[in-house]
Amino acid sequence: MTRRDFINHTGSGYMAMLGLGLLNAAPLHAMELPGKISGKKVIILGAGLSGMATAYELGKLGYDCTILEARVRAGGRVWTVRGGTLETEIGGAPQTAKFESGLYLNAGAARVPHNHEITLHYCREFKIPMEIFMNVNEGAYFYSEGTGSLSNQRTKIREIHTDMRGYTSELLVKALDQSALDEQMTKDDVEKLVAYLKDEGDLDVLKKYKGSERRGYKKQGGHGVNPPEPAPAHQLQEIIRSGFFHPAFSNIGEYTFNQQPVMLQPVGGMDAIPMAFAKRLEGKIQYQSEVLEIRKTQPGVKIVYKDKAGVSRELKADFCVCTIPLPVLKNIQSDLSSEVRRAADFVPYMNTGKIGLQFKRRFWEEDDRIFGGISKTNMDITQIFYPSYNFLGEKGVLKGYYNFHDRAAKLGELSIADRQKVALEQGRKIHPQYDQEFEHSFSLAWQKIQYSQGGWAEYSESARKKFYPALIKPDDEIYFAGEHTTYLTAWMAGALTSARAVTEALHKRVSQS
Amino acid sequence: MTRRDFINHTGSGYMAMLGLGLLNAAPLHAMELPGKISGKKVIILGAGLSGMATAYELGKLGYDCTILEARVRAGGRVWTVRGGTLETEIGGAPQTAKFESGLYLNAGAARVPHNHEITLHYCREFKIPMEIFMNVNEGAYFYSEGTGSLSNQRTKIREIHTDMRGYTSELLVKALDQSALDEQMTKDDVEKLVAYLKDEGDLDVLKKYKGSERRGYKKQGGHGVNPPEPAPAHQLQEIIRSGFFHPAFSNIGEYTFNQQPVMLQPVGGMDAIPMAFAKRLEGKIQYQSEVLEIRKTQPGVKIVYKDKAGVSRELKADFCVCTIPLPVLKNIQSDLSSEVRRAADFVPYMNTGKIGLQFKRRFWEEDDRIFGGISKTNMDITQIFYPSYNFLGEKGVLKGYYNFHDRAAKLGELSIADRQKVALEQGRKIHPQYDQEFEHSFSLAWQKIQYSQGGWAEYSESARKKFYPALIKPDDEIYFAGEHTTYLTAWMAGALTSARAVTEALHKRVSQS
Repeated sequence: MTRRDFINHTGSGYMAMLGLGLLNAAPLHAMELPGKISGKKVIILGAGLSGMATAYELGKLGYDCTILEARVRAGGRVWTVRGGTLETEIGGAPQTAKFESGLYLNAGAARVPHNHEITLHYCREFKIPMEIFMNVNEGAYFYSEGTGSLSNQRTKIREIHTDMRGYTSELLVKALDQSALDEQMTKDDVEKLVAYLKDEGDLDVLKKYKGSERRGYKKQGGHGVNPPEPAPAHQLQEIIRSGFFHPAFSNIGEYTFNQQPVMLQPVGGMDAIPMAFAKRLEGKIQYQSEVLEIRKTQPGVKIVYKDKAGVSRELKADFCVCTIPLPVLKNIQSDLSSEVRRAADFVPYMNTGKIGLQFKRRFWEEDDRIFGGISKTNMDITQIFYPSYNFLGEKGVLKGYYNFHDRAAKLGELSIADRQKVALEQGRKIHPQYDQEFEHSFSLAWQKIQYSQGGWAEYSESARKKFYPALIKPDDEIYFAGEHTTYLTAWMAGALTSARAVTEALHKRVSQS
Repeated sequence: MTRRDFINHTGSGYMAMLGLGLLNAAPLHAMELPGKISGKKVIILGAGLSGMATAYELGKLGYDCTILEARVRAGGRVWTVRGGTLETEIGGAPQTAKFESGLYLNAGAARVPHNHEITLHYCREFKIPMEIFMNVNEGAYFYSEGTGSLSNQRTKIREIHTDMRGYTSELLVKALDQSALDEQMTKDDVEKLVAYLKDEGDLDVLKKYKGSERRGYKKQGGHGVNPPEPAPAHQLQEIIRSGFFHPAFSNIGEYTFNQQPVMLQPVGGMDAIPMAFAKRLEGKIQYQSEVLEIRKTQPGVKIVYKDKAGVSRELKADFCVCTIPLPVLKNIQSDLSSEVRRAADFVPYMNTGKIGLQFKRRFWEEDDRIFGGISKTNMDITQIFYPSYNFLGEKGVLKGYYNFHDRAAKLGELSIADRQKVALEQGRKIHPQYDQEFEHSFSLAWQKIQYSQGGWAEYSESARKKFYPALIKPDDEIYFAGEHTTYLTAWMAGALTSARAVTEALHKRVSQS
């Protein structure tokens, strides 16, 4: 929900004030609902971003909120792994991260799109220092495993990008020059388009693509008598047959709305965001409290949970906001409607995994001049992320893989040691320095992480139609929040948006009763 | 000069060591020439990057270096303007910057390309903290002044980029489908290329471009029943006729080798680099020492200069390294060869100007969600740069223009007050918030900055042929360094490269004599 939507929905005085020019239409704005409530108890299930934002916003309005959190920490899937972090996956062996002080792996949420105003709003409200998350790097590599002449070797991304823009521009210019297209374009428009394509593709005077300085040099120009020598272009056929049109190499980070430049990250780790919420909710979060039952008391709710001593306890309240991920919720006994339970059973969740690899030396910066960004491959590791912090420092932690679907399922099934083995074996094809510089790793498969059991809700069109409606309305006194209750699945902005929506709906109901 | 070139040139033991695997081929490496010299005096003219790097490298070899610097500060065109910075342009009125503490304007060098290994090497050697300089931002604006239907209004860059990729992909697919191009492409290759173009342009099942979520939404999807609504595409004709093919809107930052992602900047201002050199050259830089004459003493050199008291003094040495920019050098009396003097007279230098505008509020972040990057326009201001630091902070300093050639000459001719007026009048068309939020400015025109008198050497092909050779060889005992003595003009890497080349040449001569 954008602030504007929010304003429209709530019908507060904002629109009038905006109209009168009394307020800037600044999108990064605190939620300010009218009215003050007392004596209303709300139990929130889960101290992830949606649960904490709900408690924070309801708290401002006077609600008495208690969050039950199964883990020892807040943040849910917004989780920064540092030296000392301990995790045991479902059915797995305990694993402790040994990352050097100052180095970390954002195991879940790792980037804030510039378009996600609600996330940026909270970062600003909490004065969280932000820095650029570099999501695109022309100096990183493509590695296409296959049978083409450019396969099985690393290739600078800039080479493929420049060559493809060159060839496609050349081909289109040729079609336009031959009037091969029966478009309703004037001669003047065609001329302008051809000039644009010459620039876009860096074509020569004959409108041919013959390589470009954009793709890099055989010999860079410096001091002395020799001018720079551009490296020759790859042939179009070579590029096509070497597999670079595989979706693995798509320009996701360059083009998609939620990933295109600019992206941001909190300085020092993404958990700065949940920590900022948790700080403001001191005493309201009960950790190590695993929900066993969700009961309706008509009116009201009763939650049965296991406390940190393993003792079963119950808590009653007027309302409940359930943010428990659906794959976890489906195994909790409850009085939830059959509609909600069907959603919990059938909304698909993403398999996804990451590994953090600590190296003695930041060879990707020192040797390859890669500062942030992503190398891409059609191998199981899918991508290697270079850290966007601590540039030119001593050691560093790479994200050695970040994968999805079947590949993530496959790697997730492996032992911790075997995941590391795959990450190193495949990664060294792109960075042979792996052999000499590797120290240790920490990996995770979200589908096997207790209390999450998946990366995020991954709605198909039919799942959205069938199951989503049950999650965006209250089930008697029980509301649902979390990324899975929005169109912004997988993003912190989804979690935060849902928190505001639930706060608004619940508050409206209480205010009008 | 790359390290590899350097190794080849010097013929030191490096190649053997590399061959034996005793050294990593790490490009970011300190210069380590063999031999130790004593009793050789070198006068270096100018404490810019090239002069200081030369003194630093020669100093490591035992040379006795003195730098004469006309200004009160080191760094030359690597200059960070902060609150309190005072500057009086040639023929201009004194101007003092009033920027809030922590805010600054990198008046000269402002970005470090990831490809410039020599610059990054020194940043690493000096342990200068680096952060991302965001050079590309799809969320910034294009503003095309003109007569088209999209002219005279700001347009998100992502809209034009997405639409153009869509239309050009659609057109090329059509040509390929019609076999309109008599290319030597197999059916299979054509099919793969069409699939690639569908992805590249985000075409629909009928291979038409009908807009894309990549370009943004009329209504972003959040919580609730309404899915996101993409905004409709602009028409191709509209884009063409609204002037977006003007070079002002070219994808310089996206495509060119020296500007494509990733770029970096020192935390806190670019002058961290010259300050790091100056710290290591304490006692060797004589400030406020303006060179009046450069004389040959056969052998040796004599430099006549005016000290800070205005007293004319002279200094003798075995060698001189002259880094004075050519437009300044041409007005200094000297025994330089006619070849060098012709170069000083005729190598063209760039007119270029910048203005820093301080605003009360970071409205570009708060209202427009622009974090770093550049808005582009065909107006005189040419571009607006958004700072890549202090995100979501209180106040901010924008680069209100950064222009070149005639536009820079025109704005440079204006009074300080009138430059500000133009920057505000044109900038407010992109950001109407200018009116309410502006506080104060600091502007400069490099062609009018004393001791620089230009942005950088801008060689035409014929100027490179005629004048450059004289600058890359010694004129008796006088050597030349600075960006103008390289193919990397305008970049710090050029200055640093020239310093290493001169150090090497001079040391070789001394070692062999």
